[in-house]
Amino acid sequence: MASDTELNSAAAPAADSVGYVETQRMVFETPLELDSGHVLSYYEIVYETYGTLNAAHDNAILICHALSGDHHAAGIHRGARKAGWWDNCIGPGKPIDTNRFFVVCCNNLGGCAGSTGPTSTNPQTGKRYGPDFPICTVHDWVESQARLADRLGIETWAAIIGGSLGGMQALQWAVDYPHRLRNAIIIAAAPNLSTQNIAFNEVARHAIMSDAQFHDGRYYDHGVVPERGLMLARMLGHITYLSDDVLHSKFGRELRSGKLTFGYDVEFQIESYLRYQGQAFVDRFDANSYLLMTKALDYFDPAIEHNDDLRDALRETQARFLLMSFTSDWRFSSARSREMVRALQDLDKNVSYVDVDSAQGHDSFLLEIPHYHDCLRAFIARIQVGGQPA
Amino acid sequence: MASDTELNSAAAPAADSVGYVETQRMVFETPLELDSGHVLSYYEIVYETYGTLNAAHDNAILICHALSGDHHAAGIHRGARKAGWWDNCIGPGKPIDTNRFFVVCCNNLGGCAGSTGPTSTNPQTGKRYGPDFPICTVHDWVESQARLADRLGIETWAAIIGGSLGGMQALQWAVDYPHRLRNAIIIAAAPNLSTQNIAFNEVARHAIMSDAQFHDGRYYDHGVVPERGLMLARMLGHITYLSDDVLHSKFGRELRSGKLTFGYDVEFQIESYLRYQGQAFVDRFDANSYLLMTKALDYFDPAIEHNDDLRDALRETQARFLLMSFTSDWRFSSARSREMVRALQDLDKNVSYVDVDSAQGHDSFLLEIPHYHDCLRAFIARIQVGGQPA
Repeated sequence: MASDTELNSAAAPAADSVGYVETQRMVFETPLELDSGHVLSYYEIVYETYGTLNAAHDNAILICHALSGDHHAAGIHRGARKAGWWDNCIGPGKPIDTNRFFVVCCNNLGGCAGSTGPTSTNPQTGKRYGPDFPICTVHDWVESQARLADRLGIETWAAIIGGSLGGMQALQWAVDYPHRLRNAIIIAAAPNLSTQNIAFNEVARHAIMSDAQFHDGRYYDHGVVPERGLMLARMLGHITYLSDDVLHSKFGRELRSGKLTFGYDVEFQIESYLRYQGQAFVDRFDANSYLLMTKALDYFDPAIEHNDDLRDALRETQARFLLMSFTSDWRFSSARSREMVRALQDLDKNVSYVDVDSAQGHDSFLLEIPHYHDCLRAFIARIQVGGQPA
Repeated sequence: MASDTELNSAAAPAADSVGYVETQRMVFETPLELDSGHVLSYYEIVYETYGTLNAAHDNAILICHALSGDHHAAGIHRGARKAGWWDNCIGPGKPIDTNRFFVVCCNNLGGCAGSTGPTSTNPQTGKRYGPDFPICTVHDWVESQARLADRLGIETWAAIIGGSLGGMQALQWAVDYPHRLRNAIIIAAAPNLSTQNIAFNEVARHAIMSDAQFHDGRYYDHGVVPERGLMLARMLGHITYLSDDVLHSKFGRELRSGKLTFGYDVEFQIESYLRYQGQAFVDRFDANSYLLMTKALDYFDPAIEHNDDLRDALRETQARFLLMSFTSDWRFSSARSREMVRALQDLDKNVSYVDVDSAQGHDSFLLEIPHYHDCLRAFIARIQVGGQPA
């Protein structure tokens, strides 16, 4: 039980929350060969679970996180002020209903929230990995998540769900392990990044790597952080996660002090917002992890081994698919979701698709938009659990 | 005449070029009070002219440049390899026909191509202005251009033409000096920047100002340049000047070496392109000027003094208007041009509007797109010169 002092600044779980949660840790000592050719002989994965695995072990749902997400998807840590990043969607009676499902979310390898990544100690040197931590791919993550599933006693996931980069993982699962998931819910994702998306990632990486404090990624050894670069990367990201319309309605051309200053300090409210978001990110995210995550995004392209034929890449999938996109998402546009839908339809796969009307841009996938949550809820409610046939 | 050696690397003017041109310079010693309250007691404007001012002095066209443009709009400098930035549109027989018109283009105050700006010597200190050069507005530029017109003996411009930030100047001229221009051609512009545009500018500024070599804008004194920041600003700009489609068709997901390297050097062709563009810009543009130009963009908003009523701002205009936009321009979208068109229509002004079908994004306004140039040509051909009534 937290002390009174802590409770004053900490939040108590809401009635429909999974409540207080604790992060768990799994150690893996079987070498994992990555797409890059590097082998991780030892790694740890942190994860959280919500709900209870049933006797048939057929009610497990895997949540895959996006670029800056982590394993803390729902509930609240004791003493914390904020709930997990998808708390509005995961919980008792919520679309991802923990009364029925056992929900698992892990921090991906290469992340900075507890799983082995650039900030972890490299057993070969006794120092932090930093830039020596190998670039991971979405396929690598699926491999590590499959091992986690093995250890948790989950042979087949009832569903794998993710938005953005998380949706790419759900798709890769369907390709790599057709029989290990019954449903794939792929939200605000794409079968690969557009050139424009790669370009934005490149600017973000360049901002980090050209920061004088980056020191070729060994900034830990210098006791510094490439703060300016990481902040810029996040500011840029935020612009692209939101629609032009929502930026307009939130901030317009409003001036912070009510009049022009003819100087270079923050003038427009949007500037203030971006700087705040950038600064907050620097305090919680590692620059090397950010670089790695953007590369995983850039590299994702399941069709590439099939002569760029997405149908060929998806031919062996067995899952029932739900794809969702948002009308104002210009970073992962509805057209990109439709490419996946069409490929699956051409293959006569079981696929549903909803283009949700939303002004919020790419960020919509994190928001409690009624039509969006209703569709998720309806699709997930139809998943049978408790040993019945799927 | 250039030497043989120079000619080898230099280009000769094409047959429809205005030929070899020379930059001219005008000195102004009448104090100019800027919107910021600062007074420039001495300043110089560099400019170029193409064609001949007729006896009636009624065939002069002013070209206003955009963010990174300058006074060298057409023809070629002796020994140079490249023609002016709008050479495809200005010349004998071209849409802006120098056989009929006397074309003037000047470098705006605060720029870095020869007119007084941050890189000029501050007469009060004997050092470069740097960050002490006052932020200029579009209105300030119109004032300085009006003085240049006075000195050139041009009471009324046959037309004022500009794309992007240049279009904003043409609009401001129509507002500030209704009787001093007969036609305003406003291309790929907006009545003010959207929140998203301000946000992109803010990231660009932040990239420059957070560069360790920026030294509060006094980098000249340190013998350095905030190269990384300026490069980032330009890379980001380039993404937004092009459409997603044109990036896709130009670069796709093509890899420079044909395979993934699992490292952070340039991998995708788009990355190579952006770095090249960024680096080239650093060699020709000043960071303080870039900051200033982005502020001029952010501040432009003629409706602000009229309770945000654009019609009220445009009520006194007298010019015949041509507005043009490009279907794939998402930085200055067609919808923004239509706002101006609607306001002018509501006022029963003489306005034409063309939304040009183009895949090239905002950059379209610089390209030789047949439909675009045909419309420009037709509109400009109808401008009467030689003393006939307008």
